[in-house]
Amino acid sequence: MAVYTDITDDELATLLADFDLGAPLAFKGIAEGVENSNFLLETEAGRYILTVYEKRVNEADLPFFLELMRWLARHGYPSAEPKADRAGALIKRVRDKPCAIVEFLNGLSVRRPTAAHCREAGAGLAGLHLAQAGFPGQRANDLGQAAWAPLFAGLQEAAEGLKPGLSKVIAQDLEMLARRWPTGLPTGVIHADYFPDNVFFAGPRFAGTIDFYFACVDAFAYDVAIALNAWCFEADGSFNITSARQFLAGYESLRPLSEGERAALPVLAHGAAMRFFLTRLHDWGATPAGALVRPKDPLEYERKLAVHRASPDLVLFGAPAAQ
Amino acid sequence: MAVYTDITDDELATLLADFDLGAPLAFKGIAEGVENSNFLLETEAGRYILTVYEKRVNEADLPFFLELMRWLARHGYPSAEPKADRAGALIKRVRDKPCAIVEFLNGLSVRRPTAAHCREAGAGLAGLHLAQAGFPGQRANDLGQAAWAPLFAGLQEAAEGLKPGLSKVIAQDLEMLARRWPTGLPTGVIHADYFPDNVFFAGPRFAGTIDFYFACVDAFAYDVAIALNAWCFEADGSFNITSARQFLAGYESLRPLSEGERAALPVLAHGAAMRFFLTRLHDWGATPAGALVRPKDPLEYERKLAVHRASPDLVLFGAPAAQ
Repeated sequence: MAVYTDITDDELATLLADFDLGAPLAFKGIAEGVENSNFLLETEAGRYILTVYEKRVNEADLPFFLELMRWLARHGYPSAEPKADRAGALIKRVRDKPCAIVEFLNGLSVRRPTAAHCREAGAGLAGLHLAQAGFPGQRANDLGQAAWAPLFAGLQEAAEGLKPGLSKVIAQDLEMLARRWPTGLPTGVIHADYFPDNVFFAGPRFAGTIDFYFACVDAFAYDVAIALNAWCFEADGSFNITSARQFLAGYESLRPLSEGERAALPVLAHGAAMRFFLTRLHDWGATPAGALVRPKDPLEYERKLAVHRASPDLVLFGAPAAQ
Repeated sequence: MAVYTDITDDELATLLADFDLGAPLAFKGIAEGVENSNFLLETEAGRYILTVYEKRVNEADLPFFLELMRWLARHGYPSAEPKADRAGALIKRVRDKPCAIVEFLNGLSVRRPTAAHCREAGAGLAGLHLAQAGFPGQRANDLGQAAWAPLFAGLQEAAEGLKPGLSKVIAQDLEMLARRWPTGLPTGVIHADYFPDNVFFAGPRFAGTIDFYFACVDAFAYDVAIALNAWCFEADGSFNITSARQFLAGYESLRPLSEGERAALPVLAHGAAMRFFLTRLHDWGATPAGALVRPKDPLEYERKLAVHRASPDLVLFGAPAAQ
């Protein structure tokens, strides 16, 4: 939750003057997204979200994100469609920051996904991987496997501070991940942050996906692995195999995994846990005590790493245990 | 801006099960109100705000506030109407806190009100004073004139810390206010916090009033004085007499002030500045550095006090200067 940038009625009127959306009827800051400031904006033309991009988002990446959202919405995927101004621009400025107006997407995110939610979410992710086909944008995954060792180089002390001895275990993980990281898997645009708070439901049904600000080109199966980590762990730290099977069944109802993709899931999930552990560890150390935004606990992902370390085979993802 | 209480999809479903509002379609925390947690709630039946009352609101006062809002909405005043559940209850509980669901009121608040906005806002306040007639609820003003000296007793050091010598000046003000505070003025339910952020406009027109959580029975002219302080000062600390005249003209277009009410405006406005100075001074000292909510600056109202101290006659409110 965060509203960093404050927009006055005058600034809003100046912004809307470039659009064909009519006069504003309601405007409220909303507590959605940690990286950006978001506002509910109702105009005579409909309901929208105004997002003001704070410095954590690289402005050069915005065309990729916004054109992707438009592409997905226009190819039948439930993603909020950005609105272009009269000159065709998707990216505008307010208070000297980039901003965009996107359609309001109905739906509620679920706090504790059931196995049934996981099945729906799996299908929702496969739908995204299908709908992106043909999208011409390119963006490398700057938080992909190659980035982890350099990122960890500055965090060894932080890891030790979190848990004595952790630094050595992480270094061993990173060495294994570098050695075993799969290549040649099918790639395309992935969401890369497909967590329950970015997925909307209408009742029990998948209704849409938001927050594409980590989207990039990488292996589809890595996106599945990120999502399995985000959706299938219980609050007590255990992995829910039923939820994982349902997520994969939902996914495969639209896009069956290849043998190579399925075989790679354990190492991909281990790596996906590493990616979120490292960025959380980084944010944890970088955030002053008492700051307005409380960072997410890196220990949650340290525990997920431990689960994957202990299960390097496909048992977690529905294969029978080796005899 | 603040969302203190976090409501899950399951908790929302449990709450909505008691209402005839259909299934939820969207639910987002919004950054409105400093005292409570507010959520945009769209259901199959319409759009609402769910307010969760945090500890600063006295639960015993909630029936007064919510029944007042319902009374106003049903007597033609643009105030958000609270929805009763199937058993007729306006006040429900979620996460062991009281909460209420009120209709979503369209409109935008203005950051820098023009004289034209002030005229509209004045009429909006008079409309409120007319619409409350007959409302049977009673609530004393616990931040009225009688409360200021006791409140200041604990804040003398804080006042000196803000500005050396201020404590003595405030004590003199309080003595004068106690001596000259008017009695016998027309009373009824007043808003008592009619600031620009609590007043909505649709384009240039007054569209509604929100946040009745300081409403109480007191002199109507005191409500006008609170509003004049809130609407008619410039950012540089000067009082805008044109805005004040327009506010009063708008007010009197619906409810003319009596001679006694008009004559009392200078001392009422001085007292109204004192009330907000004292509560801001209190909150300023009580808020730990780095807290999630930044308190409002008491110096803004210290400067308003100085303006009223220097102009104890009606010059600020449109009378010709004494020769």
